[in-house]
Amino acid sequence: MALGLPFKLQNAIDQLGRIPGIGAKTALRQALQISSWDNQQIADFALAIKNLGELVHCESCGMFCDETICSVCSSHKRIESKVICVVESVTDCLAIEKSEKYFGLYHVLGGVLNPLLGIGPDELNFSKLVSRVQTGGVTSLILAINPSVEGDATCAYIRQELPSNISIERIGFGIPIGGSLEYVDSMTISKALENRKTM
Amino acid sequence: MALGLPFKLQNAIDQLGRIPGIGAKTALRQALQISSWDNQQIADFALAIKNLGELVHCESCGMFCDETICSVCSSHKRIESKVICVVESVTDCLAIEKSEKYFGLYHVLGGVLNPLLGIGPDELNFSKLVSRVQTGGVTSLILAINPSVEGDATCAYIRQELPSNISIERIGFGIPIGGSLEYVDSMTISKALENRKTM
Repeated sequence: MALGLPFKLQNAIDQLGRIPGIGAKTALRQALQISSWDNQQIADFALAIKNLGELVHCESCGMFCDETICSVCSSHKRIESKVICVVESVTDCLAIEKSEKYFGLYHVLGGVLNPLLGIGPDELNFSKLVSRVQTGGVTSLILAINPSVEGDATCAYIRQELPSNISIERIGFGIPIGGSLEYVDSMTISKALENRKTM
Repeated sequence: MALGLPFKLQNAIDQLGRIPGIGAKTALRQALQISSWDNQQIADFALAIKNLGELVHCESCGMFCDETICSVCSSHKRIESKVICVVESVTDCLAIEKSEKYFGLYHVLGGVLNPLLGIGPDELNFSKLVSRVQTGGVTSLILAINPSVEGDATCAYIRQELPSNISIERIGFGIPIGGSLEYVDSMTISKALENRKTM
């Protein structure tokens, strides 16, 4: 391009473009948008981003938190819970919270086992789960892990590594609410047939 | 939601959500993505955003620049140009540069006349255009202003306010390259018929 952009603008475009899903055109549009805000607003925005580097993980469950223990693990209503819901990521945890149907504790694994990518139990937040089960009064786990080859393997590994007196259940798979049989893939239909319930 | 997000995360989500086109879900996804970078990368990102507040406009044409005069206005190849291309916004200017077919100077108006929104000539970078035409050796203007009621009015206003010895042309309208008559709106077709050329 013949016209060189000013360094500050080009730098902001490059940085915004590092976010997955933001291409060069979007980054330019966003940078121009942000540059039209007043300086205080821009400084607040930049500070909020900078603070993301200081986010810490809950020492117990691995969820994001402000201090050392997250709001679920420190909640008086939940601290006595004997159930831990194991999830892959923080966003899965938030999705379950949104359903407002679960009131136990969580454990964020930070991924699933994937030998091809070199992700074994040591790369996941797994030993902490074992120690929570052994030391706390946990009686059952709910595995809210996405259905995939790696997810299935991870669930099997957890069952194998934990004492057999701990009840371990996996969340149900089937047709999503609002879904239509016509458009659902055949794996989901076969799972839905397996998981049928007496009316 | 029962699970309160940490303040730093929620704040970053709120700030990202202020960018037009970024909703709550995208902001959450982006904030989590950024938080997974290392601290130096996050600091670089935040600094790049902060620097957007220090972008300055070229004293001559209104384009963004690092110092006082932009790279086009200070270019030795262009400084003698007697043609100014008048555009609405910085992005329009970049689009024209990308075509690599124009080698004159620019003038960024910063919008178009819009009496309903209270945008008159004083709200635009208009008086500077008049003084550039009067003091520089400019002989012609190319109005690269988008076709709309306000754009047409702005072009008419510029023609009226500038001396009649200045040649003023507006860029051509018609079917875009790669476009299909079947899908083009009737206004564009009528403009394309008007602007037909002998082969």
